[in-house]
Amino acid sequence: MSSLLDRIDQPRDLKKLSFKQLDLLCQEIREILIQTVSQTGGHLSSNLGVVELTVALHKIFDVPQDQLVWDVGHQSYTHKMLTGRKNRMHTLRQKGGLSGFPKPTESPYDAFVAGHSSTSISVASGLARAKSLKGDPGFVVAIIGDGAFTGGLAYEALNNAGHYKDRIIVVLNDNEMSISKNVGAFARYLAQIRAKPGYYSTRNKIKKLLSSVPLVGEPLARMVSDSKSFIKEILYHSNLFEDFGFEYVGPIDGHDLEGLCGAFERAKASNGPVLVHVDTMKGKGYSFAEKKPDTYHGVPQFDIQFGSCENRPQDFSTVFGKWIAEAAEKDERICAVTAAMKDGIGLEEFAVRYPDRFYDVGIAESHAAVFSAGLAQGGLLPVFAVYSTFLQRAYDQIMQDMAIANEHVLLAVDRAGVVGEDGETHQGIFDIAFLSSVPGITILSPATYSELRACLERAMYHCTGPVAVRYPKGREKQFPAGLHGNERYQLTEDGEILLISYGRLAANCCQAAELLRQKGISAGVLKLTQLLPYCEELIPLMLEKKKIFWVEETVEQGSIAQMTGNFLLQHGYRGDFFYRTAPNAFLPQASVDEIFEELGWTPDAISDWVEKSCRGNE
Amino acid sequence: MSSLLDRIDQPRDLKKLSFKQLDLLCQEIREILIQTVSQTGGHLSSNLGVVELTVALHKIFDVPQDQLVWDVGHQSYTHKMLTGRKNRMHTLRQKGGLSGFPKPTESPYDAFVAGHSSTSISVASGLARAKSLKGDPGFVVAIIGDGAFTGGLAYEALNNAGHYKDRIIVVLNDNEMSISKNVGAFARYLAQIRAKPGYYSTRNKIKKLLSSVPLVGEPLARMVSDSKSFIKEILYHSNLFEDFGFEYVGPIDGHDLEGLCGAFERAKASNGPVLVHVDTMKGKGYSFAEKKPDTYHGVPQFDIQFGSCENRPQDFSTVFGKWIAEAAEKDERICAVTAAMKDGIGLEEFAVRYPDRFYDVGIAESHAAVFSAGLAQGGLLPVFAVYSTFLQRAYDQIMQDMAIANEHVLLAVDRAGVVGEDGETHQGIFDIAFLSSVPGITILSPATYSELRACLERAMYHCTGPVAVRYPKGREKQFPAGLHGNERYQLTEDGEILLISYGRLAANCCQAAELLRQKGISAGVLKLTQLLPYCEELIPLMLEKKKIFWVEETVEQGSIAQMTGNFLLQHGYRGDFFYRTAPNAFLPQASVDEIFEELGWTPDAISDWVEKSCRGNE
Repeated sequence: MSSLLDRIDQPRDLKKLSFKQLDLLCQEIREILIQTVSQTGGHLSSNLGVVELTVALHKIFDVPQDQLVWDVGHQSYTHKMLTGRKNRMHTLRQKGGLSGFPKPTESPYDAFVAGHSSTSISVASGLARAKSLKGDPGFVVAIIGDGAFTGGLAYEALNNAGHYKDRIIVVLNDNEMSISKNVGAFARYLAQIRAKPGYYSTRNKIKKLLSSVPLVGEPLARMVSDSKSFIKEILYHSNLFEDFGFEYVGPIDGHDLEGLCGAFERAKASNGPVLVHVDTMKGKGYSFAEKKPDTYHGVPQFDIQFGSCENRPQDFSTVFGKWIAEAAEKDERICAVTAAMKDGIGLEEFAVRYPDRFYDVGIAESHAAVFSAGLAQGGLLPVFAVYSTFLQRAYDQIMQDMAIANEHVLLAVDRAGVVGEDGETHQGIFDIAFLSSVPGITILSPATYSELRACLERAMYHCTGPVAVRYPKGREKQFPAGLHGNERYQLTEDGEILLISYGRLAANCCQAAELLRQKGISAGVLKLTQLLPYCEELIPLMLEKKKIFWVEETVEQGSIAQMTGNFLLQHGYRGDFFYRTAPNAFLPQASVDEIFEELGWTPDAISDWVEKSCRGNE
Repeated sequence: MSSLLDRIDQPRDLKKLSFKQLDLLCQEIREILIQTVSQTGGHLSSNLGVVELTVALHKIFDVPQDQLVWDVGHQSYTHKMLTGRKNRMHTLRQKGGLSGFPKPTESPYDAFVAGHSSTSISVASGLARAKSLKGDPGFVVAIIGDGAFTGGLAYEALNNAGHYKDRIIVVLNDNEMSISKNVGAFARYLAQIRAKPGYYSTRNKIKKLLSSVPLVGEPLARMVSDSKSFIKEILYHSNLFEDFGFEYVGPIDGHDLEGLCGAFERAKASNGPVLVHVDTMKGKGYSFAEKKPDTYHGVPQFDIQFGSCENRPQDFSTVFGKWIAEAAEKDERICAVTAAMKDGIGLEEFAVRYPDRFYDVGIAESHAAVFSAGLAQGGLLPVFAVYSTFLQRAYDQIMQDMAIANEHVLLAVDRAGVVGEDGETHQGIFDIAFLSSVPGITILSPATYSELRACLERAMYHCTGPVAVRYPKGREKQFPAGLHGNERYQLTEDGEILLISYGRLAANCCQAAELLRQKGISAGVLKLTQLLPYCEELIPLMLEKKKIFWVEETVEQGSIAQMTGNFLLQHGYRGDFFYRTAPNAFLPQASVDEIFEELGWTPDAISDWVEKSCRGNE
């Protein structure tokens, strides 16, 4: 069946095909995309939208001599199929399999790692500069969505890219979406441009039109063409991209292969930097995804015939969403800020019920943080809901604009801890490290839905300054009865051995303690909810223990474990303090369970670890 | 003499004055500005540039009901004089004195803390949103330079600011400079607009001009006005700011009080967000500063009659600058990236000698980091030279775009450690904390010029991945003979007591050891040069010591001291481990010496601390 794709082992094989064949190839690719993602889960809508675009790029450019830089990179599946990886698509996003993002270590056809948004023009500028200085031939092409253009990094790059006359081409993949529907002035602006078909030929049209005005048209057209008056400036006015020094080509129908190829040829022929504006349709070719592209942005496995299940099961994100919607009803000061993550993060209901207090600012975490600080300074109660990995983008703003003036902003940090299949670029294992260096911050880490609600309530009304409430992707774990304590920590019965953890790993510690009990080893469990300010009243309790085993879902450096080890030393602790954090490394893709297994975080592994240490000491 | 300023205790006093009086007031203010900064040091050029602008703002707006948000904030001296602080100007930037930046805790007329660039539109959006929701009257005005507009955060904010029809006014203070001369497409774009005087009346001019064309002019003008054709779109084309949904007013002469007041009145009368484009001249009114505005951007004390000394004494920045200029001569792959800090950071010579390899990207640290990673991936040897505090802006990019793919980028981190008079927003006491969480990073901390050169050389040719070489503002300290070791650390003679430090504080430890020797206490000194990867071979050495005293110029949380405390516990250390880091807090303004004194980091204080501990134990 896949007869055309079968013939393509590397991109140059595709150059021999006719446009008609290429159209068929695109159909084949779409089928495989739907097939693959229905089995592996992954990003569907965005990949369906760029099939023709990707095929056209590989037809016109010679990769890897020419380099393609995919922004965010989750739309690179077709690129992977065309560059020698079609037979491994079923391993996508699985342990040891193909990455869901471009990865130079996976293929020489992947120019750069991508995972976070809006970096591609910067990367392409660097690669193009290197080519020029080294005298390497070839173009560098950044493919960036209109969503990624809401991130300031794209502008910083645009502002600089044109300076050196390197052979850089920016393809604006305009699908009117990032993950949710795009917002802001830039989105409206693009809509305006799209409404003017064939903008790039506008100048000639104006000349023709002026010329057709009876009597004075011709001389008027000539006058306008020749003069340096401001009228000429206005008549021949550039669009935003031209203002930034780019030649503008577009808008091009992103599903018309011939049009795309023509535009890319034109871009290659230019002397300076070029922006090619391509209109695509997210989800193209799969009716479910066309109708609800955001539902199929990132999907788990689904049934092709019936589509993805749309009833979202309860998880930490939905519990957060429900809490904030209810809290906002009682308190008019509460408002919600998101950086293009409305649906993923659970703000759908809030957005509908309180449109005046709901702010989706685009993929702009830095702005989201400062804007939130401004709202707080103005007397409101802002909640900035954000994935742990993306909050890295707001580190400076949390420091400077929240913490210095102690602005009370609630950071709802979703996807904290191991995330899984998205791999290195998306794990939430650094937030403890970077947030803990923020003076005056409060960090809470609930382990269950009810704790999440309690922490949010506490963060909102009983804390000051920036407060991070962090919780993992997915569902709560069960805890045994017998934990007692307060809002900051909970304990089980005492003993000489203590297991300490927080969040979902605390549940594994409880199970491990049960396993140990069955083996005749009595171990207590201390489950932290408040990580910072550090609960110093726990130190005397720890000092009494012979052995402490700490398990923590974060990198070692900057972990609470490390902080605790140092405190214990300061207080003259003479027992053993062992810990298992994630290594100081980026965790590759695998399921959360596989990663837990690998890092020795399962109840069995924790129990074995403790047992071994205890038996060894006897 | 200062008769007019004497009459102004609060902004409303200024509203009674005539334009003629206001002009005189501006003269008085300029004299005090020059007088003050010549004595206290500080930001001069930018403040001289905005005297009329500030006076006009306070004439037209009612602060604090209306709120002024100063971007970066170092241009707020005139604002401070007009808002009840004129008699404290001599305390500027000194311990306990007026801050060189806006500070709500200092005055209710200061709407928000500012120190890092490009935040003002985000802040103003938040404040304006809060006003609207709470029904508070008043405008929010962001005053932002064209330099700050090279930062992506400004675009993220611009993209969102117009959405809610809040009463927000952005004043673009266009002086064609950030600290150095502005670069990039946006700067060229502004130059184009400036060349078209009175842009805001252009539309009417077009109508008039078209109408004046004989015979067909009038109907043509009417046709164009009425039709919805794309010609109208072109004829009435908006500029970049209008593309973002702002009404554009300008350009206005920033030293013409009447023109400024007229523009602000016009802005107040508008229904939506407005951008007022004001042309100012940096250094206006002080001939030395007019000629060399960058020299007078931030100056130490100077003689008014003769101007500031321009012969820059040797310091860490100049040593870095000399090293990279020489290294680049031998190695064509070396290139330098800076975020608008060419002069401060020592890249003047490099920029002149290797213009092809010198990249000033504007105030755009995030882009600088990703661009550097792209250069590295392309086979070059990029050095991103940046102040410690501003590197916070690139945390995510160091993680995602450098560290994941282990791109070899040399981060030359200047102003690491205590910086002094700029206060909370500029101290370089967090880079250890946030950089140490980056997997695979190397962090080197030279203490002398020769070590700086050696570290840079080593970082460039003997390390992989991201490498940070961090060094303080100012000059090297002297070290006694007798330190022996290798490129990673150096030691003095042995003993039961060990002082450990790195960077300039290591010199204080050496002096403290000498003081202790005079008191009969023998203490060794361990001076680290390589902080990460952690020198694990030092642990056995530490384990032998009875007492370890660690001094470190960084916040406690995330410090190398904390890491060491934990390691020592892991290895069963049974001695005493004491440390003195900075507290987990923002350090207020004071001289570096005063801060060292306060934190107990002077040789005397270290010696006393050690002595007390030793005597106590006897």
